[in-house]
Amino acid sequence: MSTANTIERRLTRRVCVGNVPIGGGAPVTVQSMLNTRTVDVEGSVRQATELVEAGCDLVRLAVPDEESATAFGEIARRTRLPLIADIHYSCRLAHLAIDNGAKKIRMNPGNMHNREELKELARRMAGEGIPVRVGVNGGSLDPAFAGQDECDALVNSALDSVELFESCGLRDIVVAIKASDVRTMVSANRKLSAVTDCPLHLGVTEAGTLRTGLVKSSAALGILLSEGIGDTLRISLSAPPVEEVHAGKTLLRCLGLRSDCVDVVACPTCARTEIDVAALAAAVERATASVRVPLKIAVMGCPLNGIGEGKDADLGVAGGREKSVIMRDGKIYETVSSELLMPHFMMLVDDYIAELLSKKA
Amino acid sequence: MSTANTIERRLTRRVCVGNVPIGGGAPVTVQSMLNTRTVDVEGSVRQATELVEAGCDLVRLAVPDEESATAFGEIARRTRLPLIADIHYSCRLAHLAIDNGAKKIRMNPGNMHNREELKELARRMAGEGIPVRVGVNGGSLDPAFAGQDECDALVNSALDSVELFESCGLRDIVVAIKASDVRTMVSANRKLSAVTDCPLHLGVTEAGTLRTGLVKSSAALGILLSEGIGDTLRISLSAPPVEEVHAGKTLLRCLGLRSDCVDVVACPTCARTEIDVAALAAAVERATASVRVPLKIAVMGCPLNGIGEGKDADLGVAGGREKSVIMRDGKIYETVSSELLMPHFMMLVDDYIAELLSKKA
Repeated sequence: MSTANTIERRLTRRVCVGNVPIGGGAPVTVQSMLNTRTVDVEGSVRQATELVEAGCDLVRLAVPDEESATAFGEIARRTRLPLIADIHYSCRLAHLAIDNGAKKIRMNPGNMHNREELKELARRMAGEGIPVRVGVNGGSLDPAFAGQDECDALVNSALDSVELFESCGLRDIVVAIKASDVRTMVSANRKLSAVTDCPLHLGVTEAGTLRTGLVKSSAALGILLSEGIGDTLRISLSAPPVEEVHAGKTLLRCLGLRSDCVDVVACPTCARTEIDVAALAAAVERATASVRVPLKIAVMGCPLNGIGEGKDADLGVAGGREKSVIMRDGKIYETVSSELLMPHFMMLVDDYIAELLSKKA
Repeated sequence: MSTANTIERRLTRRVCVGNVPIGGGAPVTVQSMLNTRTVDVEGSVRQATELVEAGCDLVRLAVPDEESATAFGEIARRTRLPLIADIHYSCRLAHLAIDNGAKKIRMNPGNMHNREELKELARRMAGEGIPVRVGVNGGSLDPAFAGQDECDALVNSALDSVELFESCGLRDIVVAIKASDVRTMVSANRKLSAVTDCPLHLGVTEAGTLRTGLVKSSAALGILLSEGIGDTLRISLSAPPVEEVHAGKTLLRCLGLRSDCVDVVACPTCARTEIDVAALAAAVERATASVRVPLKIAVMGCPLNGIGEGKDADLGVAGGREKSVIMRDGKIYETVSSELLMPHFMMLVDDYIAELLSKKA
């Protein structure tokens, strides 16, 4: 039992991307973007499937040209999730993407210069129930807002686009203000959240390599989510997209915003560590990546904290020099030779999950 | 120019670990812990040196036995930073560690059961100006506090220890409440911060593998630091300790709490990417890890956001299919064949930093 605060989420209007709701009290969703060439249909379908299996809720693809729009259609037909088209500069490509099954269009109105074309597109989207994500980005801000304080410029540019779309009857609007600077991104989203009821898409852009990007994104999004801000998110990384999904799910789980995945706690290694914690924890993470039940597994290198953490987990290991202790449902389950710990424990993990899933079914 | 909020840090009493201040307005420090065996003097000195070079401010070592205490002395003589001894169960080992040059003792009074011995140790530490870090851990909580709400138990256990040490004249106390659950850790530290002026050491314990641990720790510590809570930190990872240092520095930098390091922004790869962003960004990170000047380097895969981000950075790359653009001080510096981009840009990075450092010297 704990008085750990539950996050009170800000209420936003609900927008549906195909059958996936964003905002209006829906669980925060995890997005990612393919890094395959969209024209590479086989590669794109393969990566999209991998993301779905890792727990991604919404997948985005770039549509930089006509050929990509056609490929988008083929990929959409072969993917279980609603797909989002990423459009720059061209309303024509947005129309083509919708013709080919796009369930949401992400665009930065700051770089769509023909207002009449944009309004026509918005009216079509309103008619067909296709939502838009207004993406305002520190790196490509509409020149009309240059000169303002950066946070204000980002917020005002976003609001300007929201107004434009609403004037065309399109109210299914998700807004994203992204910046590579964490403080700018956090401040701008706080300001935006105070003045709109559109659901917010959170992301730090150009966050960097895995090790740098995870830190920046988790800090920025963690701060906002803890304040109840944010309805959907992408952890942008210069790394395989499946890492973005893993990180997004981990973030939501650790903040208590999602519970449908496995939590692997593992100790930092120190001089007391008696087993290869990192290898065992990684093996457990791999084996449980696609499992959609709440479960806590503790991999601990020594008995000191191992027994205590193990008691708190569904399954646990407390490593020892010769013998290691395996815990199950908070109790000591068996003591095994440390040499045999890895295969032994992995078998138990598989069995435990199989039992859980059969109970659930 | 930006209205991004500056964090207003809570004022705590100042504690000095050797010549490194914690609290009282000092910059937030980054700690790590060796995962070598302390008796392995050569290995430990090598790892400590590696951490110092990566920008670690304080290094901790486990002292599980007498032999380790002696080795601690040898390692302390050969390391540039003040070393902290990690002690469990035994006041005798704490005394030995101090005899051997420990500049701070980390202990969990919850597992030091002889109160008289503990008071004697505290009086010695007060006399010799050796601070203590009271480490209270969800996994090894003093049984006296069992039955309470978990956050309250953690806070009350910490306060109880603070009182004990203060009653012996020892006021140089840093407090850490760690838990593997992010929400518990955040809530407990908020509560603690409201009732003590001791500097707080932040950490999520058993945070997990690199990819999981970075997310949990950055979210938890990001939330607390953004509220002004926290004077020193460790990002615990089941990974090489140098990763803990990199993560800690990145976190502080992105929140604007430290500026003495290089910020590498890199785009997530997408269908527009024309160069190997991850490889180039990683190379830049490696080449600049030990540089202690504020610098922003943008590695972008395409011209779309690349030019904009590059303008905002000291050095930047905007990749292109055949030619890539290199930016310097916000202006286009040169256009090179994309094949030659990596060696070309890395040379520029080296030159730029050499110039900066020579100006600084």
